[in-house]
Amino acid sequence: MTAPPPAPPLADPAARSADPAQLAASLRALHSADIAERLATLEPAAAARVMALLPFPVAVRAFDEPGFDRQRCAALEAMDSALASRLVAAMSGDQQADLFRELAEPERRRHLAALDADTRASIERLLAYPPETAGGIMTPEFVRVPADWTVARVLAHIREVGGAKETVYAVYVVDPEEHRLTGVVSLRELLLADAERPVGAVAGPRAPLSVSPQASWSDVARLVSKYNLLAVPVVDEGGHVLGIVTVDDVIDELVAEQTKQVQRLGGTEALDEPYATIGFGRMIRKRAGWLCALFLGEMLTATAMGYFEGEIARAVVLSLFIPLIISSGGNSGSQATSLIIRALALREVSLRDWWRIALRELPAGLVLGAILGSIGVVRILVWQHVGWYDYGPHYPLVAAAVGLALVGVVAFGSLAGSMLPFVLRRLGFDPASASAPFVATLVDVTGLVIYFSVALVVLRGTLL
Amino acid sequence: MTAPPPAPPLADPAARSADPAQLAASLRALHSADIAERLATLEPAAAARVMALLPFPVAVRAFDEPGFDRQRCAALEAMDSALASRLVAAMSGDQQADLFRELAEPERRRHLAALDADTRASIERLLAYPPETAGGIMTPEFVRVPADWTVARVLAHIREVGGAKETVYAVYVVDPEEHRLTGVVSLRELLLADAERPVGAVAGPRAPLSVSPQASWSDVARLVSKYNLLAVPVVDEGGHVLGIVTVDDVIDELVAEQTKQVQRLGGTEALDEPYATIGFGRMIRKRAGWLCALFLGEMLTATAMGYFEGEIARAVVLSLFIPLIISSGGNSGSQATSLIIRALALREVSLRDWWRIALRELPAGLVLGAILGSIGVVRILVWQHVGWYDYGPHYPLVAAAVGLALVGVVAFGSLAGSMLPFVLRRLGFDPASASAPFVATLVDVTGLVIYFSVALVVLRGTLL
Repeated sequence: MTAPPPAPPLADPAARSADPAQLAASLRALHSADIAERLATLEPAAAARVMALLPFPVAVRAFDEPGFDRQRCAALEAMDSALASRLVAAMSGDQQADLFRELAEPERRRHLAALDADTRASIERLLAYPPETAGGIMTPEFVRVPADWTVARVLAHIREVGGAKETVYAVYVVDPEEHRLTGVVSLRELLLADAERPVGAVAGPRAPLSVSPQASWSDVARLVSKYNLLAVPVVDEGGHVLGIVTVDDVIDELVAEQTKQVQRLGGTEALDEPYATIGFGRMIRKRAGWLCALFLGEMLTATAMGYFEGEIARAVVLSLFIPLIISSGGNSGSQATSLIIRALALREVSLRDWWRIALRELPAGLVLGAILGSIGVVRILVWQHVGWYDYGPHYPLVAAAVGLALVGVVAFGSLAGSMLPFVLRRLGFDPASASAPFVATLVDVTGLVIYFSVALVVLRGTLL
Repeated sequence: MTAPPPAPPLADPAARSADPAQLAASLRALHSADIAERLATLEPAAAARVMALLPFPVAVRAFDEPGFDRQRCAALEAMDSALASRLVAAMSGDQQADLFRELAEPERRRHLAALDADTRASIERLLAYPPETAGGIMTPEFVRVPADWTVARVLAHIREVGGAKETVYAVYVVDPEEHRLTGVVSLRELLLADAERPVGAVAGPRAPLSVSPQASWSDVARLVSKYNLLAVPVVDEGGHVLGIVTVDDVIDELVAEQTKQVQRLGGTEALDEPYATIGFGRMIRKRAGWLCALFLGEMLTATAMGYFEGEIARAVVLSLFIPLIISSGGNSGSQATSLIIRALALREVSLRDWWRIALRELPAGLVLGAILGSIGVVRILVWQHVGWYDYGPHYPLVAAAVGLALVGVVAFGSLAGSMLPFVLRRLGFDPASASAPFVATLVDVTGLVIYFSVALVVLRGTLL
């Protein structure tokens, strides 16, 4: 198959109406990710019927796909309970943990009880970690060998157990007595190495990169991305490997994180499910929260404007530039916020750099404000002289007030926008939860105060 | 080493001042990604001196790291030209192509001429593809075997050539005569398979996933992410494998794409270099472009306000709510835009779905507008009754005008925001270049017109 398959439509009426046996027959030749994608578009009961008709190994692989996701619990509940238990038992360790996180309580206990003691213990260990940590996304299925085994013995071991492991491309070497992690070898290195060498010697003396189970998934992603790893071991304080996070989980998390990030920057709570399939009511709830919060914040502009109602009544011409001036502050603030969010996420700057950023954004804002201010002044003078609009007898002073206010508002916007992620972190929030509308709201109120203060100074004795 | 290393400071004065020999000695034990990161903080001449003092294989690996990036050309120019040629010749194929893309003309031709004919031809093939396509990011170093070889022979072949290949974890099987791609086997499958079976039989009859050299990198990323691939083959029209794109390149592209996306959504041109190290002038230029464009667009608000100057003079109370109303339109628009940008990027919706989106966003906007409108009306009535502010004798009508205008403005904002990515695509731009400030600017002008039109109807005969 060349080129990626086309997007699935918002709903797939053909798939919904098809006969389960026919659908199962047409699905079984597909890649498990595609099977999962199709099953996820069905009603849970229909998906359960199709799953029952698929060959069991095919059904397990499809059920193991992250693409199945939210539909998984519903399909499981709609399924014959013996089949459900077999499916859950056959899933990979990290997907099992994900599933149990989503299952509601009576189901959860029932399926957990149906598992063998080892699997249950391993899932309960994974569930003890929050889902956004390395411990929460790791899989307990990895290859671990003592350092004194030969390369030939390790390869034979991989041949024996490799089918059941999440990856065999990274093999973790532990010391023979304490089982502490001492090194890592790639399958490529094993293949190229002398068969009789001890694997510990192939791994070399360098301590392997690892993370603690409490590490955030974004730290894991940064490590995998920077060092081109296929997997990272998750290691406890005693140096024992608890599990691994594989590169495909990192990619899934990166894509999910980007979606969340864009949605939050756009000023909405992360939807956490696809836009195409989320219910209307749930979508409204996700959007209304931030929109109302921003609206309440923005109400302060009405209060601020109230203080200047007298000035507006005396110099209505001032009101013409209100949207232009406050939006320029919001725009420069939103630029600065988005730059700083990414610089923080990529660790290009750290939290203690806030004052360096401030010392950079203030002059940047002044320069950008001067550019916009000049354009604003030219605009007013040109319109007045050509005769497109009459800003009154004091138009040079009006132009000066607008130009100066723009310098102040844009400089303040850049500074406030760049500092917002730091303030959020200081208050215990994720710096990436700063949004463009949030910055704009912050800057709007201050922008009005700056504008009218400048106008009061410049126009005192003439218009005001 | 447990846990990721801390962020490098904005500049590293210690590294800058150190003696090259001492620095080289301290660097050589590090991971090549860390060496590259440190070298990138040095002046090009200093980096070149340190590179010359590193053992050659260490220097090559560091030079091959994408983390070196922009500094690479400068360091190369500062280097002894014999060493420079040896370094370039020893790099991996995809990094060579990246480097030649960045090199300026006289250097480029000189280094290209110093390579052997095969390498030069392979680089020139890669350079023929735009950098954001599969052809532009692929590496020509992959393992390709005829379908009639046995598993044992393939494993022996990997042992022989594996050290020089970008990855050996995916082995591409071609038909023995025409060398067309017929399948792919993973190294895991090879290890688990019977040594005497032909590799074609292990690969199975299913056609492997592949992309054309013209495929966009985001299509490649989607394929790798969905099907959990370690590499994707890039195949020409005749079915021949030209190269592969590996998962670590996909991760690098995903991270770079997220940075670009966040910066663009925040309303700035993508910086294309780290915020911490970009020069002040270059940063201003990147930010001033969009800021000026938005400012020019926003000037239309001054024109629109000019038309309503008479109304404002008669009913100054109306001006109090201008920032509140237009910002609510911008916020709802920015929500809708960010949701649609991601839904399009993830292929949850396709371009022909625009009318479905419109039919969803219009009612969503009306509901959200009704919520905000209600809050707005309550705000005015409460302030009036408690006596915090006097909106005049016609305050119920003012409240009605504000409430109704909010419904209209928020509905228009949601609709315009959701349609903007589609309009951009239609005009030949990337839909993801829509930004929150862009939407806000679009909606501000319309918001003013909606507000004053509603006010004219509601307040006719009383205030207006």
